Formats: sequence, C-alpha cells, structure tokens
Amino acid sequence: MKLFHPAPKFELTDSQGELVTRDHFAGRYLVLYFYPKANTSGCTREGQEFTARKKDFAKLHADVVGVSPDGLNALCKFIESKDLGIPLLSDPHKGVAEQFGALNEKGGILRSTFLIDRAGVVRWQWKKVRVDGHVDEVYAMVEQLHAADEAMNPLVAVRRSKRALGGKVSRTTIKRLVQAAHLAPSCFNMQPWRFIATTGASLEAVHAGLKGGNAWAKAAPVIFAVVSRPELDCQLSMDREYWMFDSGMAVMGLQLQATQMGLLAHPMAGFDPAVVKKGLAIPDDHVLIALVAVGRPVDVDVLDAAQQKMERAPRERKALGDVLAFDRFDFKTD
Amino acid sequence: MKLFHPAPKFELTDSQGELVTRDHFAGRYLVLYFYPKANTSGCTREGQEFTARKKDFAKLHADVVGVSPDGLNALCKFIESKDLGIPLLSDPHKGVAEQFGALNEKGGILRSTFLIDRAGVVRWQWKKVRVDGHVDEVYAMVEQLHAADEAMNPLVAVRRSKRALGGKVSRTTIKRLVQAAHLAPSCFNMQPWRFIATTGASLEAVHAGLKGGNAWAKAAPVIFAVVSRPELDCQLSMDREYWMFDSGMAVMGLQLQATQMGLLAHPMAGFDPAVVKKGLAIPDDHVLIALVAVGRPVDVDVLDAAQQKMERAPRERKALGDVLAFDRFDFKTD
Repeated sequence: MKLFHPAPKFELTDSQGELVTRDHFAGRYLVLYFYPKANTSGCTREGQEFTARKKDFAKLHADVVGVSPDGLNALCKFIESKDLGIPLLSDPHKGVAEQFGALNEKGGILRSTFLIDRAGVVRWQWKKVRVDGHVDEVYAMVEQLHAADEAMNPLVAVRRSKRALGGKVSRTTIKRLVQAAHLAPSCFNMQPWRFIATTGASLEAVHAGLKGGNAWAKAAPVIFAVVSRPELDCQLSMDREYWMFDSGMAVMGLQLQATQMGLLAHPMAGFDPAVVKKGLAIPDDHVLIALVAVGRPVDVDVLDAAQQKMERAPRERKALGDVLAFDRFDFKTD
Repeated sequence: MKLFHPAPKFELTDSQGELVTRDHFAGRYLVLYFYPKANTSGCTREGQEFTARKKDFAKLHADVVGVSPDGLNALCKFIESKDLGIPLLSDPHKGVAEQFGALNEKGGILRSTFLIDRAGVVRWQWKKVRVDGHVDEVYAMVEQLHAADEAMNPLVAVRRSKRALGGKVSRTTIKRLVQAAHLAPSCFNMQPWRFIATTGASLEAVHAGLKGGNAWAKAAPVIFAVVSRPELDCQLSMDREYWMFDSGMAVMGLQLQATQMGLLAHPMAGFDPAVVKKGLAIPDDHVLIALVAVGRPVDVDVLDAAQQKMERAPRERKALGDVLAFDRFDFKTD
C-alpha cells in the first residue's frame, strides 16, 4: 500500500455475515486497525478502548473498524464476551492485511492502524502498535485531520493566477491536467469543453494574439486554448449559457490539479480571439473561451516592476457578505 | 503545530546571512529537519546523508533544509568542514523549533523532521529521529507523496453529482463553502458570482421550482442559488460570456470544498428559473444560473430504483482524445 494514495479496495465480512467494503465509508473517516487474534489480552484492550471512544470518533464523522484473521464465530464471541461496540471484520486469508502492509516477515499480523480520509485516501499509519496510549494517539490524529478538512482546502487557498512561470511540462502532465478538468460535472453530462494544448512551435500562434499585459505568458511551456460552442451543452431558457458555466467548472479542476502538481495555471481573457482562432484552426462556429498558461514557478525577477508588485500583493476579494446571502436575494446591486 | 494544516510561517537566516521563508518553497516539497547542534557526530551524519541524496530529492522537486540553534559562523564552519551541500538555517532562540513542536520537555531540540507539501501543508512528521536509516525513510515518503500528487487529485476523483443526501449543514459550513467558491479567479478579479443559501423555510421557494427529476433535492438541508448577470463581469467580444465562465470556476471550488468536508454537492440545471427567482426575490436583470444541493451522504435506499442505478453506475466520460488535442483544433465536430 502507498501512503497518500486511495486505500486498497476491500470486501470483508463482519461478525454478522454482512459484506463491508471500502466504499461503505465514503464521506467519512475510517480508522482501520489490524490486530492478531480475538480474545487475546492486547487485542481485547485495544477493542475495548476503541469502543469506549466510539462516540468521540463519531462526532468527527469517523468510524473505527477492526480486522483480524478470525472467523465469524470467533468474532461474534469476542464481541459478546468483551462487550465490544465496533464492527470487526474477518480477513481469514490475510489478503487485505497484506494489501495494507500489515503483515510481519513471517506472514503474521503486524498490529497496525490506518487512517483513511473522507475521499478514501490513506493519510496516516501506525505500525508495530503498542496498545498503551494508542487509541488516544489515533483520536488526536483524526481530530487534526478533521479540523484541517473543515478549514479551507489548501489547493484552493494557495492557487493564484501568478505570472512568474517557466520551465517544462511533460505530455503526461498535460494529459493529467485535462483529465482533472474532464471530471467536472456538466448539464446532462454533455462535457462541452475542448482543450487545445499548445506547446513548442504552435505556441507562436497563441503568442501572436496575446494582449500586451499578458506578455509574461510567452514564457509558459504550455498554453491551453479552451474552446466550446453553445450547441455542445444544454440549451436552457433565461440566458443560462451552460457551455460557458460547465467549461468554467472544468477549468477550475485543471487549475487545482496544476496546483497539486506544483505548477502555476493562469487563465487569461486578454487576447485577440480572431488571431488565436485562425492560428489554431479553430472553426468559426466555436468560441475560444480562455487561454490558460501553465508552467513551473520561477523567480519573480523575470517580471517587470509593476507585475512583481501584483505578484506579491495580497489576494483581494469582496467581503463574504457581498457574495453570500441567506434565504433571499439581498445584495447591493450597483 | 497541527499536522495536515499549513506549516507555520518562518523567517530564518541561512549560513550566508540570506533570509529564507516558508513561501520561498512554494510549489516544491520541503523536508525541514531540526537537529541539536552543528558538528556533533549524529548531526554531521544526518547532514551528510541528506547531502548525498540531494539530487534524488531534487528530482522529486523537494528541497532539504536543516535548522538548528547554531549561529551563522558555526553553520558556515559546519558546512565547510563537513562538505555539506544543503542550506542550514539558524534558529538561535528556537522559536521556529517551538512552533513545529520540535522541542523536548527541557526546551532542547528534539531531533525531528517535517515533510511539507507543494501547497505548504505539513503531511508527515518524524520525532525522536534516529539517524540510522532516517534519510532513506524520508526519501521513501517524499516519493510516495510525489507519486500521489502527480496522480489525480482525490477530491476531483471522488466528487460526483450524487442524489442520496440529507442530514444537516451548519452556517459555518455554508460560509466555508462559499469562501472556497469566492477564491476562484475571475476576469480582472470582477468576482461576478452571488450565492443565496436557502435553508429551512426558504427552501420551499426553491422546491416549488424543481423539475420532477430533481425531486431528490428536497431532502437537501441547503440549496444554493447561484446568481449573476453579464454586467458583473468583463464585457468581451465573440460570445465570451465571462460571468457564466467565472461563476462555473467558483462553483467547482465549492464542490471540491464540500467533498473535502464529507458532503455531497450537486449542481442542477433542471428547474423553472421564473418560479425560483420570484420565490427568492431575485431581480429580473439577474440570471439564476444554477441550483446546488448540498447535504451529507445517506443510504441510496431513499432514491427510486432508476436513480439508485444511476448512483451506482460508473462515471461516464468521453475519451480524453475527444476533449484534448495538441497544437491545433482537431476534434470531431458533430
């Protein structure tokens, strides 16, 4: 198992014979702990201590689930005799334990605990667990993760349309960025977005259309042309131009994926669409919505003084109350 | 310091007297290691072992930086005499070490290492480090994190417009969701999006306008009405309706923040805008772009059979080649 990656999928049976899978916990934290054998003293204490804190974990939207090679009968007896209140799963062939890397060299269970986040990603592991103090330690970790997840998403928080970029971007990365865009939702799943990745010589066609204020973008190793047309999306009443809206959702996915990959992605409206459309052979009936320059961050020295200042200036946003109202339209309409 | 949260900001001086801050590493991984004292045997070995792997770390876009209470002179001598190739920072009052929790009970340095990701978030820590094997262990962790970050963002990957939702959503959460939306970029930073959060009694005004296929949304504790109008954004040539595009970017930020918080967020186009606009007192000259239902995931049993099937069906997307071309427009235009 790799840390930071989605947890291995598993399908195990609980003490009642019900099938329990990883996806059962979607949207919740999962504390999955592997223990060697029902009814032994350490495993009993671990199960009882997790049971005692079950409500605390639940307040953080966390489920605690134990896994051992014991059969259903043994699990049933263990739960009843020790008054355990958490689900125990049977992994008789230790296949799931192996996937999680919870086996020792001899193939026995290594007492281990894994913390899986609400998106299904393994975020922390404890191996060679000593039962003393372990449940408190796990709880403290869930608490920190929960607090972080209730706060602003770090990619949303640090994403900025910066200008000091350069370096190289591989084809694999370009594909990954568009894959992220392509997972956006759209009206009736129409997927109206089209991305032209310009690199190398084809960048000239884009550069020719850039407005002066966007000259910095000439240093970008890739510039995406985002293209669509109204007919590629739902046709809705009352000015709802969904091809633009859905394309916006896709482009935001691209930007956050770029941020995760340590790249800058800067959408631009300042260009001459006629020039760029001609240069990239975009048909007349398609709209060139935006250009998105992507590259690695470089030192701000490459920018002119005015743009260096913008780059360093704090982010400006209207007050939240200017864009959020409760229950009825209640905004200043200036 | 809290794990999973943005790393404490720091400003320290390196052995050359240059100021080094957390933001210096934006877009790169940072391995920040605290060691007790220059020139002692353990610290020398740790510094030399990190130096030996410096290029390997660099390939993963990772910088390794050491921190100790030593003064600049001591650091200079340490680097020269031991042939170290990594920056060493001076934290004479141990203030940064304290912020990171790298002090022992007596106020001395606890040998510790922190792995900070490309967005500035602390993702792993090692405390009471033993030098033997440590650098390899850190490298393996950076490798796993890097591989995960090059793969699909987990929130983008698991976000789906699901229907089985319910539960409660607090005002704090509503604000957090709109804050995430509000950090989207927009043309000339115009921020054209407006969100009306309908909860409680005001939900009726929205329910009255929902199309039959969206009846499931009546179980949502909050439905956002996303509102804008063309004049709130840049006025651009050639059909570029930026108020729709920028609002789309904002709504995607909201959805990913919701996913991080364990919520479902489902944008809908299927409603009667005239009815909902009237119910929420939205002026005629504003467009009701979309409704976004938000709630906690519940069992799919609440849905009818057809919708249960949709909920369980795999996600469908066009092939990547249908939405990504290189260097020129090269799509099927059907």
